[in-house]
Amino acid sequence: GGIHETLFFPDPKLPCRNHRKPGGCRRQNCEYSHEPTSLTRFLDYLASARQTLDICVFTITNDDISDVVLDLYRKGVKIRIITDNDQAHTQGSDIAKFQAAGIAVRQDKTPAHMHHKFAIIDGRLLMNGSFNWTRQAVTSNNENVTVLSDPTVITSFQGQFNKLWAEFGR
Amino acid sequence: GGIHETLFFPDPKLPCRNHRKPGGCRRQNCEYSHEPTSLTRFLDYLASARQTLDICVFTITNDDISDVVLDLYRKGVKIRIITDNDQAHTQGSDIAKFQAAGIAVRQDKTPAHMHHKFAIIDGRLLMNGSFNWTRQAVTSNNENVTVLSDPTVITSFQGQFNKLWAEFGR
Ligand SMILES: [Zn+2]
Ligand SMILES: [Zn+2]
Repeated sequence: GGIHETLFFPDPKLPCRNHRKPGGCRRQNCEYSHEPTSLTRFLDYLASARQTLDICVFTITNDDISDVVLDLYRKGVKIRIITDNDQAHTQGSDIAKFQAAGIAVRQDKTPAHMHHKFAIIDGRLLMNGSFNWTRQAVTSNNENVTVLSDPTVITSFQGQFNKLWAEFGR
Repeated sequence: GGIHETLFFPDPKLPCRNHRKPGGCRRQNCEYSHEPTSLTRFLDYLASARQTLDICVFTITNDDISDVVLDLYRKGVKIRIITDNDQAHTQGSDIAKFQAAGIAVRQDKTPAHMHHKFAIIDGRLLMNGSFNWTRQAVTSNNENVTVLSDPTVITSFQGQFNKLWAEFGR
């Protein structure tokens, strides 16, 4: 029982932003995807958060993803983000945007990598795999994200998130 | 039901190779671990392969892991390895060693990354997560490997493996 779906990348195209908004896209020969893709599935799972969203991801530079995160925050979802300091200052990183909006962000400040790429949605869904939250990973790389509702797995990852959150808050 | 264990890194130490051999380790104050760690759990799962082992991993430079793979191959386990060409030539890569031993290896030859880090053991266990098969990832990085026996998830990953195997064989 439960959810156990795996999303594989690369997608053929990035999703059309207009198509995902009310009113849709009116561009002729739009170069972006109007069909469901792995990224639109990913965004839909992320957007399903109602109470809490715990994100623990090495690199976050994909604006389609960060727009969903910022939108959830504005709607009152409690968001915590752990990332890697080596990546937080690279070009295109969305970390500064999250901090400016008021989202709680903690960073691994050691030379080692905080290399996880997982998120926990409402304590009931885990998204985990090889996928960093970048644009390159969507349309170029071979990547996976497994979406699971297994309570044993979620308890493990929630414990790890809480441990790192405390550790990087010192 | 089934297996759903998550291994988190970093480990405090690399495992002692002598301790894992018959006869054990006689070094006084051995600097390596004689206790179970995430890596020894990982190696034990890997070594449980009896028929087939399909590996699809971005970087493989960890000799503790590649020794287990080579040992399984000598025992007659059918092994297939997919990796990334950018990584196959980096220092310490074990890919040349696998090829010299006769193991079937296929590589992503595009500039994009074959970024997966998963293995399927006997078509019954999946190991997947953020963990590249390197030494740094064991004792420095924050990493995860989830071990699952879920048939739905395994079917997805086996399909993806077979697809990439065919694609990189052209
Ligand atoms: Zn469009
Ligand atoms: Zn020892």
